[in-house]
Amino acid sequence: MASNGIVDVKTKFEEIYLELKAQILNDPAFDYTEDARQWVEKMLDYTVPGGKLNRGLSVIDSYRLLKAGKEISEDEVFLGCVLGWCIEWLQAYFLILDDIMDSSHTRRGQPCWFRLPKVGLIAVNDGILLRNHICRILKKHFRTKPYYVDLLDLFNEVEFQTASGQLLDLITTHEGATDLSKYKMPTYVRIVQYKTAYYSFYLPVACALVMAGENLDNHVDVKNILVEMGTYFQVQDDYLDCFGDPEVIGKIGTDIEDFKCSWLVVQALERANESQLQRLYANYGKKDPSCVAEVKAVYRDLGLQDVFLEYERTSHKELISSIEAQENESLQLVLKSFLGKIYKRQK
Amino acid sequence: MASNGIVDVKTKFEEIYLELKAQILNDPAFDYTEDARQWVEKMLDYTVPGGKLNRGLSVIDSYRLLKAGKEISEDEVFLGCVLGWCIEWLQAYFLILDDIMDSSHTRRGQPCWFRLPKVGLIAVNDGILLRNHICRILKKHFRTKPYYVDLLDLFNEVEFQTASGQLLDLITTHEGATDLSKYKMPTYVRIVQYKTAYYSFYLPVACALVMAGENLDNHVDVKNILVEMGTYFQVQDDYLDCFGDPEVIGKIGTDIEDFKCSWLVVQALERANESQLQRLYANYGKKDPSCVAEVKAVYRDLGLQDVFLEYERTSHKELISSIEAQENESLQLVLKSFLGKIYKRQK
Repeated sequence: MASNGIVDVKTKFEEIYLELKAQILNDPAFDYTEDARQWVEKMLDYTVPGGKLNRGLSVIDSYRLLKAGKEISEDEVFLGCVLGWCIEWLQAYFLILDDIMDSSHTRRGQPCWFRLPKVGLIAVNDGILLRNHICRILKKHFRTKPYYVDLLDLFNEVEFQTASGQLLDLITTHEGATDLSKYKMPTYVRIVQYKTAYYSFYLPVACALVMAGENLDNHVDVKNILVEMGTYFQVQDDYLDCFGDPEVIGKIGTDIEDFKCSWLVVQALERANESQLQRLYANYGKKDPSCVAEVKAVYRDLGLQDVFLEYERTSHKELISSIEAQENESLQLVLKSFLGKIYKRQK
Repeated sequence: MASNGIVDVKTKFEEIYLELKAQILNDPAFDYTEDARQWVEKMLDYTVPGGKLNRGLSVIDSYRLLKAGKEISEDEVFLGCVLGWCIEWLQAYFLILDDIMDSSHTRRGQPCWFRLPKVGLIAVNDGILLRNHICRILKKHFRTKPYYVDLLDLFNEVEFQTASGQLLDLITTHEGATDLSKYKMPTYVRIVQYKTAYYSFYLPVACALVMAGENLDNHVDVKNILVEMGTYFQVQDDYLDCFGDPEVIGKIGTDIEDFKCSWLVVQALERANESQLQRLYANYGKKDPSCVAEVKAVYRDLGLQDVFLEYERTSHKELISSIEAQENESLQLVLKSFLGKIYKRQK
């Protein structure tokens, strides 16, 4: 999907991070001490810019496709990148807090922020600060735009949905840990859609639409398609966690050990016979490598790899047909570009 | 300060909580499972309504005084109460997370929410949910008002200041724990103003002003006065934590044990001679009751009770003179009513 200026866009995007950080560290609404300023700078550098930046970059990508053919000003590129960074900030905020709640150890190849000895539970407040920075950034750069209030409403609604999805996940995993039969497909889909799809898939495109002057109420279809796409993406994630190549995906999956409500275990529970069910109940959620191997053996016995390939095929076909039912051609391009980036991904 | 209808207002206020809760539990932006709905309901009942409700009630009190003499509609009372509840929700959100970060045990006479066995660190996400509920409530009840965006900006700015103040407090206490000399008056004042005064004193009045159609940019003086009042309030709090009557204030203070950057220790460090400094360094921040007693003895030797009385007198005098310098008489009433509620309080 690489367009001509893509290297430039990423470089430009990364430069804008530095600008936004400087603005936050000099925000007149707070009288920083030197210690506080250093803390926030270190926290930002540690938690915000180190990801793949896919979500952030896709705001300006989508905006460009929406404006197909028309010249885009420097200022529009800048604002699209600023919104992209707001999504990266949102992601960083969720990840800091999720890692605390999940007692995680590493994130993006380094210790989780709260694992640093000087940090600990101060990280809870750091997460809150990241969330607050988004409002500060939006106010600074969009306060005078006619769509400012729509941006605030959008970020607020998506954050509410994500936090509600996270609650569902936490409650379900809690209960699943005592009774695996709580892991059912409707619950799985609901968790994924709220916890991941809204902010990862819908939000970037919605930001681009708002910037282009669109009323989001007229784009409920687009929302539904992107939420479906996000679901498909998470199913891939769950599949790769177990069957992907650790060399390629860059980490070793631990969903089985961690008692995750993964697409694979939900599928397995639906398809298993008595003895396979017993093997799942006896081995799921245990750290012991032989237990993990036993769960994987059940997955293979049930042919879950083929089930996944079939899911991937059907899901892709349905998404393409929903996309092509859209009247607006530039929106079709936006959605197909998104889908193209994830279809049959290996990492 | 009890005005005629004050019992009615409190009853009405408490009824509105039930209405807001029902709206949140039926928010169409999230497809609740029965488990999730029960969880959120229990969490709200446990964390939101059980405080003194001073902050929340003062929105409608202030609004009434601002509109001095004019009839206030049922609808205005309702909206003033809704904004009041938003502040109570904000407070509940801060308290849930502060208690986690401070490893507290009790809050409002019961175990902290995160101390409940089923809750634990899920409480981090519950705090986030409370924050998100505020936006949902504001959207539902104020979306069509011309001042909607001002309300969002106000809550966002005040939350940013509170979280930044909390960071300052966490960093300072961390460092103070290894070097008590970090506790200095300018730092103390900065923490108190950002962490407490903005949301507890400025925010309720600012909500009333916004509802009355005022532009907050024209009321920087009011902000400064309320932030000063909030500082005075926190100094009282610190004083009562050590010298108040536990029977009256309803809890036993532990600021000395907890190594808090309290007004008393900052004053003591400013006034102590070599041997008194040594006693403070040797005994501050220790659980041992004899250490606590030794710190209190230093406070008494330094006459901190008189220092406090003098501070209270000066502070009150200055506040009154700033208030009387205000041109707007109904604003003077609002500010004096606030001050009247806290001057020489014993709890």
